Amino acid sequence: MFPQLFLFPAVCRQKRIRAENLTDCKIFVILNSGKISLFVKEREKMDKKDILRAVDHTLLAQTATWEEIKEILEDAMNYNTASACIPAAYVKQAAEYVQGKLPICTVIGFPNGYSTTAVKVFETEDAISNGADEIDMVINIGYLKDRKYKEVEDEIRQVHKACGGKILKVIIETCLLTEEEKVRMCEIVTNAGAEYIKTSTGFSTSGAVFSDVKLMREHVGKEVKIKAAGGIASFDDAKQFMELGVDRLGTSRLVKLMKNNNSAVE
Amino acid sequence: MFPQLFLFPAVCRQKRIRAENLTDCKIFVILNSGKISLFVKEREKMDKKDILRAVDHTLLAQTATWEEIKEILEDAMNYNTASACIPAAYVKQAAEYVQGKLPICTVIGFPNGYSTTAVKVFETEDAISNGADEIDMVINIGYLKDRKYKEVEDEIRQVHKACGGKILKVIIETCLLTEEEKVRMCEIVTNAGAEYIKTSTGFSTSGAVFSDVKLMREHVGKEVKIKAAGGIASFDDAKQFMELGVDRLGTSRLVKLMKNNNSAVE
Repeated sequence: MFPQLFLFPAVCRQKRIRAENLTDCKIFVILNSGKISLFVKEREKMDKKDILRAVDHTLLAQTATWEEIKEILEDAMNYNTASACIPAAYVKQAAEYVQGKLPICTVIGFPNGYSTTAVKVFETEDAISNGADEIDMVINIGYLKDRKYKEVEDEIRQVHKACGGKILKVIIETCLLTEEEKVRMCEIVTNAGAEYIKTSTGFSTSGAVFSDVKLMREHVGKEVKIKAAGGIASFDDAKQFMELGVDRLGTSRLVKLMKNNNSAVE
Repeated sequence: MFPQLFLFPAVCRQKRIRAENLTDCKIFVILNSGKISLFVKEREKMDKKDILRAVDHTLLAQTATWEEIKEILEDAMNYNTASACIPAAYVKQAAEYVQGKLPICTVIGFPNGYSTTAVKVFETEDAISNGADEIDMVINIGYLKDRKYKEVEDEIRQVHKACGGKILKVIIETCLLTEEEKVRMCEIVTNAGAEYIKTSTGFSTSGAVFSDVKLMREHVGKEVKIKAAGGIASFDDAKQFMELGVDRLGTSRLVKLMKNNNSAVE
């Protein structure tokens, strides 16, 4: 019932809390003394901190206003997420707003992936000159279906070059691909030298699923990280994704959960 | 039952057809002689011709391959549509393929509209240099929600300039706008000098609806034409849109209906 149970009596005495406050705990403990309950909560908070550090806190709605973007930036800074992922039109204003305190991520050729390579390269340069630290690009899915593997790889390579050392995540939109195409994209993304492969845009028929992450982990090079995005709605899901080898999570819901539960991560 | 009924006996005798072939006719007529049935069919075909001439025959699926695009181009030429509307990545190849026999239309800042103005301008120039004849751009919806009307208008103006005389259609994505915002966009598109206002991307919560077209006709300048797009699935719908003042229809279904019925438009 209490795996890896350690007690720190001095800390427990200092931070005595009531068991009924432990709404976020997976193991719910009622005690007269706060000792064990405190331990459980601290452990839970540690996990959430780790998960939040892997989150690209994301707002990519077509209707997003600056007020909404500002809230995303503030929340991302408060909850210490990996980055805030926002539309390109807001990157400049966002970079000025956060003053280097938070990496700004944006999307390229998004979400359909069928702009030209020239446009994707320009878009990347434009975003970086506006202050973007991370670039999430969508592959040309039609070209992949047409088995134009060289064109798909060259495009990623060119966008990666345009990133000039900033992180590139390559969205392959798994829900539209066959298993063979997913494997092929793992190889292409690895060859092209991108830092991340990413499951989904969140704008197609489905988001990240565990089986796709497993497949990616098997087929990408060791140096390629994985971002799962689309539909990640709970810390349990997030943990499972991370246990499967995901380094980044594209979602806004985890921070929202924290806010709704009024859980500060100190 | 037979409004505007005229008979051309000489033609009827020449082109005798059987009544059961008239699957496309709204008025179904069974006669021993082919006289009236021929008239009805010819009349129906005339209407469809007019409608097809207003269609931007469209394929904007993320997964579209060159084979599928080629079919769209062939069908657009066969059925004499206004243009073929295809992803930017295929414009160059398509323009070479049709050899000036069909206007090529493509999409900019599509479908979310939140790339920067610089990117939209570059995208437009790139598309035109690749052979695009018509440009369908998406407005920055977040800026509209933020009442940054000047920025929205300036962006359209800059893209229009980049069009260098080619037709610009401005997609306002009506399903995401309030009535006030739709009216405002009618004024902005008129002021910015674009040739068309367009209802929808086909990638959001809803496509074109009659009430939006009515509102547009009331509020755009007389020189601004209207394109309805998204969900137009029948010739009846298309006719109603055109009767309300629509000049272009973005859809692939009308040509598909013709093909499925094996109806050649001579």
